[in-house]
Amino acid sequence: MRLGVLVSGRGSNLAALLAAEATGRLAPAEIAVVVSNRPDAGALEVARAAGKPVAVVDHRDFADRDRFEHALLAALATHDAEAVILAGFMRVLTPTFVAAFPLRIVNTHPSLLPAFPGHDAPAQAVAHGVKVAGVTVHFVDTGVDTGPIIAQRAVPVLATDDAAALHRRIQVEEHRLLPAVARALAQGRLVCEGRTVVIRAAPGAADADADQLL
Amino acid sequence: MRLGVLVSGRGSNLAALLAAEATGRLAPAEIAVVVSNRPDAGALEVARAAGKPVAVVDHRDFADRDRFEHALLAALATHDAEAVILAGFMRVLTPTFVAAFPLRIVNTHPSLLPAFPGHDAPAQAVAHGVKVAGVTVHFVDTGVDTGPIIAQRAVPVLATDDAAALHRRIQVEEHRLLPAVARALAQGRLVCEGRTVVIRAAPGAADADADQLL
Repeated sequence: MRLGVLVSGRGSNLAALLAAEATGRLAPAEIAVVVSNRPDAGALEVARAAGKPVAVVDHRDFADRDRFEHALLAALATHDAEAVILAGFMRVLTPTFVAAFPLRIVNTHPSLLPAFPGHDAPAQAVAHGVKVAGVTVHFVDTGVDTGPIIAQRAVPVLATDDAAALHRRIQVEEHRLLPAVARALAQGRLVCEGRTVVIRAAPGAADADADQLL
Repeated sequence: MRLGVLVSGRGSNLAALLAAEATGRLAPAEIAVVVSNRPDAGALEVARAAGKPVAVVDHRDFADRDRFEHALLAALATHDAEAVILAGFMRVLTPTFVAAFPLRIVNTHPSLLPAFPGHDAPAQAVAHGVKVAGVTVHFVDTGVDTGPIIAQRAVPVLATDDAAALHRRIQVEEHRLLPAVARALAQGRLVCEGRTVVIRAAPGAADADADQLL
């Protein structure tokens, strides 16, 4: 399964996907193209250093969201992307884009959704005083961080944490989880039943392990 | 510290508090009285079987919430309660009641707040399709499950879970956590700084253990 990875930032999740691919933990998924909406995103350098095709589709160059997304879809089509991973991509997608990849768009978000959707989730978590935070990888729908949840991992919030320290702890889990979900998606192991995503066991694995297989 | 425990239901959290008291894990807290707003609450039998004083203050016997709470406060005062544990107590408290026990009222809720406040939290979690659920023990303010969070524990949601199965898994953690928080409260180890609750180390314990001490 050929993945288009959409980025806006430094590219730490992209780096985790590339490392998984390089060590055989992403197959049968492969990264076909990395598309950034920001020409200065550090993720572009991460992609280039790994020898991956990159494209820049700057949202500021388009009169409206439809034309921006049309260009995004064109960049993905050029590289025959079959699924899309949002790896720190900071634009909300319209129904048109979402419909182009039904249950084939995955986002990662640094909170245990439905808690703390939107921007700066680790800062929201610290301000709220929660003691458990985490990461959510989910299918994308047209809301903000509202789609069916594929997998979540919890991390503790420590008394000494500021938002940055908490975010780093969340990212350790995120960088493990996102490639594992991308692989499971490519293996056809993610089954969506309403809002509930069931992860089927990998071929040869015991059914009882299904929840542990990411 | 003499605790008044408010109940409405079967009394599983009360039973956990009683078991902790019987085995020395609650001291210097002690259960002074158990008050139910429902005359048929199973928790009353749990309390009586342990030899604890009980009181019934049926909210249906009172013309308004103020008079109901006045009777609750009187029942607590009769037994010299210094702090209040809501152990499955299903009535929202007014500012008058909350002000009578400043930072001395603790509630337990079967979700990782701020996710899924209110009724039937495990059913809400299953319906939403989350993969991580949990329990929150928090100070009570005048909102519904909105007060400063003292402690949280996460549990996995399994593909086979219905709300009842998930609730049972949450309760295993809840029945450990609530007595530990009650003890820490009585030891004066819970420090509230805005919305953030810091748990100070027990006397003799290493500071680094503070987050693990519940």
